[in-house]
Amino acid sequence: MKVHERLAQLATLGATPAGIDRALFTAADHAARRHFADWASRDGFTVEQDRAGNLFARLHGGDGGPPIQCGSHLDTVKDGGAYDGAYGVVAGLEALERIAMQATPLRRPLEVVAWAGEEGSRFPLGCLGSSAYAGLTPYEHIAQLVADDGEPFTHALHGPAGLLDGIPVRAGFPLPAAYLELHIEQGPVLEHAHARLGVVTAIAGQRRMRITISGQPGHAGTIPMDLRSDALCAAAEIVLAVEAAARDVGHAVATVGYLTVSPNQTNIVPGTVALRVETRSVDDARTLEIERRIRAVAARTAQARGTAISVELLEARAAAPMDDGLRELVRRSCERLVAAPLDLPSGAGHDAMCLAQVVPAAMLFVPSVGGHSHIGAEKTDPDDLELGIEALAEALVAADRALPLLAEHVR
Amino acid sequence: MKVHERLAQLATLGATPAGIDRALFTAADHAARRHFADWASRDGFTVEQDRAGNLFARLHGGDGGPPIQCGSHLDTVKDGGAYDGAYGVVAGLEALERIAMQATPLRRPLEVVAWAGEEGSRFPLGCLGSSAYAGLTPYEHIAQLVADDGEPFTHALHGPAGLLDGIPVRAGFPLPAAYLELHIEQGPVLEHAHARLGVVTAIAGQRRMRITISGQPGHAGTIPMDLRSDALCAAAEIVLAVEAAARDVGHAVATVGYLTVSPNQTNIVPGTVALRVETRSVDDARTLEIERRIRAVAARTAQARGTAISVELLEARAAAPMDDGLRELVRRSCERLVAAPLDLPSGAGHDAMCLAQVVPAAMLFVPSVGGHSHIGAEKTDPDDLELGIEALAEALVAADRALPLLAEHVR
Repeated sequence: MKVHERLAQLATLGATPAGIDRALFTAADHAARRHFADWASRDGFTVEQDRAGNLFARLHGGDGGPPIQCGSHLDTVKDGGAYDGAYGVVAGLEALERIAMQATPLRRPLEVVAWAGEEGSRFPLGCLGSSAYAGLTPYEHIAQLVADDGEPFTHALHGPAGLLDGIPVRAGFPLPAAYLELHIEQGPVLEHAHARLGVVTAIAGQRRMRITISGQPGHAGTIPMDLRSDALCAAAEIVLAVEAAARDVGHAVATVGYLTVSPNQTNIVPGTVALRVETRSVDDARTLEIERRIRAVAARTAQARGTAISVELLEARAAAPMDDGLRELVRRSCERLVAAPLDLPSGAGHDAMCLAQVVPAAMLFVPSVGGHSHIGAEKTDPDDLELGIEALAEALVAADRALPLLAEHVR
Repeated sequence: MKVHERLAQLATLGATPAGIDRALFTAADHAARRHFADWASRDGFTVEQDRAGNLFARLHGGDGGPPIQCGSHLDTVKDGGAYDGAYGVVAGLEALERIAMQATPLRRPLEVVAWAGEEGSRFPLGCLGSSAYAGLTPYEHIAQLVADDGEPFTHALHGPAGLLDGIPVRAGFPLPAAYLELHIEQGPVLEHAHARLGVVTAIAGQRRMRITISGQPGHAGTIPMDLRSDALCAAAEIVLAVEAAARDVGHAVATVGYLTVSPNQTNIVPGTVALRVETRSVDDARTLEIERRIRAVAARTAQARGTAISVELLEARAAAPMDDGLRELVRRSCERLVAAPLDLPSGAGHDAMCLAQVVPAAMLFVPSVGGHSHIGAEKTDPDDLELGIEALAEALVAADRALPLLAEHVR
């Protein structure tokens, strides 16, 4: 079965009028994992799962130590697309099938992983499965999570939409020798550069802030301009300052994606505005500098406009650089297929971010049509899907050859 | 009964946790009109209503033609205050009581009017009763209005919360000789100037616009700054341009009170922003110029940011200057009570706006504590309430003496 056929089949699971809604441990997510397990079994791969909900398909190789893993996730955001995550999983299966068909000698096993709950779907933790697997979040913490709908994690894990029946549960979270992730770019950079393959330099770090502006609400007809303390005018200055900070600092993005006005009536001067800022860069010093600039503008605006402005840091996640050696190896694999693969950072977070903390990790990107993602219309050209699989297969074999075996490591 | 006691009694009708909700032809509104009728009857005034829902209390005077009317409205905005409208009505009753008690000779009748539905409460027409009475909106149009909750106007008018039982319905809408309205300022100007009485120069005209900005939504981590078309950044420029236009043009206000972002998620570049602008001035040329500047900025922003921006004029209402002669008479009445009554425009709309189109009209203001209005905490100092009544009584008697009688008119 072709990769786009498998993606189309998965896309029916959790289909909504606007896209796909496949949250962790829902019937749709369970069905997607079941498809993965069935496809993998049919190909003769060994299928296992773990107690975080991650699912593994193993192609046996030589006895040279832990496997090289590749993969991504099967859950989606609400009204998400058919490619984000799912492509990396089915592409991994197809890469392993090709390597198995060609009887390429392997020094160690290869594994495809479908990580559980990358999108923070249902449970309030992004990269749930890979974070547990890499040991970044203690399992005791994961086990105590409660879904948005009130279901405890362990209840969901052992419920009808949780672990798959008849699939062995792996003991613990044994680390791989290395990790590769193939993913759609989810942005316009490759398309804009007419590049068909991208090699990720690093996954951006992120800082998120909540800003609350308290002015003085009042009748829009009766309060003269010079007696106003308009929270929305103050917010407008901050929105533009966020944009300017990212542009001026460079190699970073910063966005006000969320903003609400209160009381939000045409004839009332806005009293309160709540907004959320996020800024990302592969260089943590830049997001820190952007936060500093935003705080400075907030303080100046508060003073100038007689408003109270609070800036609260909600989240700070460090950038995750990809492994230099593995990245170079991936780059050479891509160069066998296209003239000029593009080095680029990943603005979006991925499971590779967690694995990179504990083992050598690298990522490949294929273009997203129009740069769109997290919407039903998310798309990648079928030829690019195919190219990504070839690059992944090349990289897996090359990594197997290049990486030291466990015995060599110990020596 | 003192005016603040009457206001407190009315404030119980339609009381909500946040203020008062007394929409036209609801049980609360009906009860408020019933209170007015009972108070007026007890004082010996003749009570009538009309088929727009307006309610009249008449103190008989000489036979010199149509009455001088004063009044305001008993309906409120949602979660409104106890003074807006209601003060002008009960103050009118009290002024007529004093004039009657002093047995002041009158050349013509005086009337207090409780105009129906000034706030556009329930029915989609502001100043419903006064607009019908002044003939600005044909009664056939009023009769076809449908409430927000689906009830047709005529059904409500003849229903249990409509016309009062036992009160004669006046034929047609006979115009008064002149109209005076006493109202709370609803703004901070009098308080700021330490003035206790205000004489309204004109009621501001108003232009309302709906602006829709369509950019390109996308992943906030993956779309580089220079490939964005962020609808909220474009909106921020417009919000600040609206403020700047009002400040630069002068003697005007302009406000973005309503703004919504879509999809309004922290990690998505805003795709669409809808906002509403209103601008008011007693000089219509200024609101027109402000609209021109807003349109120019919208066009420049659309071009610079690659967004589509539509600007749609929703409403344009001309300014209503008060009658020069009547205003001067009101000013002199105020000067008998305070050293320096303040001339000021009314940014808010009032029933006097409609009456001013057809008869000489003038308005008096008393201060609003903190400039607050349209909220439960709306307040005016009891001494100022009292002062307003005295000024109104003075002005009514002075107007009766000064205005030509019908016979003189005809001459």
